[in-house]
Amino acid sequence: MKFNRQIEDLKIYEAGKPIELVVREFGIEPKDIIKMASNENPYGVSPKVSKVVAENSDKIYLYPDDSMYSLKEGLSREFNVDSDEIIIGAGSDQVLEFITRAILNENSTVLQNSVTFAMYSIYSKQLGAKIVTTDSIKHNLDEFRELAKEHNPEIIFICTPNNPTGDVIERDELYSFLDEMSRDTLVVVDGAYMEYAKARSDKYAVEPSDLISRYENVIYLGTFSKAYGLGGMRVGYGIAQKEIIRNLYKIRPPFNITTLSLLSATEALKDREFVDRSIESNFMEMDRFKEFAKDNGLEYIDSYTNFITILLPENISSTYIADALLKNGIIIRDLKGYGLNAIRITVGKDYENSRFFETCKPLL
Amino acid sequence: MKFNRQIEDLKIYEAGKPIELVVREFGIEPKDIIKMASNENPYGVSPKVSKVVAENSDKIYLYPDDSMYSLKEGLSREFNVDSDEIIIGAGSDQVLEFITRAILNENSTVLQNSVTFAMYSIYSKQLGAKIVTTDSIKHNLDEFRELAKEHNPEIIFICTPNNPTGDVIERDELYSFLDEMSRDTLVVVDGAYMEYAKARSDKYAVEPSDLISRYENVIYLGTFSKAYGLGGMRVGYGIAQKEIIRNLYKIRPPFNITTLSLLSATEALKDREFVDRSIESNFMEMDRFKEFAKDNGLEYIDSYTNFITILLPENISSTYIADALLKNGIIIRDLKGYGLNAIRITVGKDYENSRFFETCKPLL
Repeated sequence: MKFNRQIEDLKIYEAGKPIELVVREFGIEPKDIIKMASNENPYGVSPKVSKVVAENSDKIYLYPDDSMYSLKEGLSREFNVDSDEIIIGAGSDQVLEFITRAILNENSTVLQNSVTFAMYSIYSKQLGAKIVTTDSIKHNLDEFRELAKEHNPEIIFICTPNNPTGDVIERDELYSFLDEMSRDTLVVVDGAYMEYAKARSDKYAVEPSDLISRYENVIYLGTFSKAYGLGGMRVGYGIAQKEIIRNLYKIRPPFNITTLSLLSATEALKDREFVDRSIESNFMEMDRFKEFAKDNGLEYIDSYTNFITILLPENISSTYIADALLKNGIIIRDLKGYGLNAIRITVGKDYENSRFFETCKPLL
Repeated sequence: MKFNRQIEDLKIYEAGKPIELVVREFGIEPKDIIKMASNENPYGVSPKVSKVVAENSDKIYLYPDDSMYSLKEGLSREFNVDSDEIIIGAGSDQVLEFITRAILNENSTVLQNSVTFAMYSIYSKQLGAKIVTTDSIKHNLDEFRELAKEHNPEIIFICTPNNPTGDVIERDELYSFLDEMSRDTLVVVDGAYMEYAKARSDKYAVEPSDLISRYENVIYLGTFSKAYGLGGMRVGYGIAQKEIIRNLYKIRPPFNITTLSLLSATEALKDREFVDRSIESNFMEMDRFKEFAKDNGLEYIDSYTNFITILLPENISSTYIADALLKNGIIIRDLKGYGLNAIRITVGKDYENSRFFETCKPLL
């Protein structure tokens, strides 16, 4: 049996460690484990959503409504776009997969930030595309401009706010950049953490309806995994002009999200109060991380998300810190794999953050 | 923006109609709608499974354990195979997607039955592969032998029992066929309805452990969507030798099934009694469909699944029957799209079947 050439070189992606693994590996009780590695909402999920899930737990033998009528209606109202300008994926990850598969092949080039969401390059490599990256750690649109001119990429990935760094692009700067890009290049604007940035200031807010009415070659991505508290349900979406959505639909497999995922995302859109409260608490707690960094003479990247990236001095290894915390039941993300001597910590609940500070301090 | 060449010609797949659509289109109350179109388990889901789902409805903000430890352990015990001989997908559909993407390209050929599960050709076409099909409606392995010799396909899809026809292949015949196939061809043995066939007679039972110990070039597919009653949770699996699984893992996106899907599939494996009772009731009710067909002078295909395909005479159009039933709130599958003047009906609960017989009879 022969596997496709580009498959041979691929590595298997390792996701953030789940609680179950730490229980098994270190024999720590689940109640003593704090997960600050995957940027889930530490305030959980809206009780209204979990109620709907529980009430429908006997309906899981039925395939979902593959037209996703209710959820599309909800998103349509939320974002003031048409239903056929929306595609729903098993996480915005899956929409990324549709995009790359619809456009890329072995002759393609993609452009992305040096440090950014790992799935952009993973999916692009699966299709044999060439990956061009900037040098800057934070998004530097001038660098993007130059590289776009030089390489004429099929896709440009912009992540704002960016994961795993937390920095953000001002909307007006993004628009100026998009104005200059060739209409033959698809620009992916990944707003997985947009709800957080928007809460800090309107000048970072990218509204999908405005974005797609201006640019025929842009797709906006959003997710229910972060502020909406549905990480485990795998629901994300893409918003673009109809022609793009129609082509992505050709790749979407039927029933690509579960019956309960549909219900929970539809319900989550109705409880905006839960989302707003989560975001408010997030930034209050984030201030404590900034204090902690300053008190310990550590640099951090100002974050517009629900996580914070702390840059470590040369004499402290990020892997050492991450491993030591793990043995104490605190799961964070070592960014060594991204080429940074840094750790990314999901901002947790107050007592979780306190435990992080207490456990981390002696390691520094 | 330029989409990949093979995307341009693709059609958008239309799945079986959900109850929600019939409610919207025909204004029929949900309680008056019977869904006999998607081969879900009409007895629903094990109460033990729905209990676990309800109890964990507040955990859905957490990403799933991406190692899928518990579910793999469960499948490992169930099928007597190693954990690294298993890959889990969002339905066995997704495992099919991994397989096709790992192997096929524009120079590839696949071989499948004339009438079979639609996703084989849909995924293969997405990759630009050529589809070769047999002439026979039921699986005819001699025809497969000839076409395999002639076309030397990269993948052969065998669906036993077959969907949407319900016929089955004897294990010994399958083994003789596999003995003759080139080790360079991957043979997919799709056992989505195997639990049903096995209950009719052991001679149809294909055991994954036996299958993969004999053949290095075979992958077995199974699903939780049918006998296990988890259609809405999207969980399926592939079982093959480690080398195949390792390559498919390179394409698997992280978190490809939901937190509750993992929990529910793990729990479903423990309630074998529910599965056995569902299968027993299924075949008791299936006899009523055979009687109905005979009484009305209609041909049917003897079925080893939870559905039955009735072949209609030329003067009765399958589309007419399906549409007329739909207006009466009964959703079945018109097989016109498969080139057959036939209808496929999921065997339902006793009162559902009675209503089908009563509503269908005057239409004949």
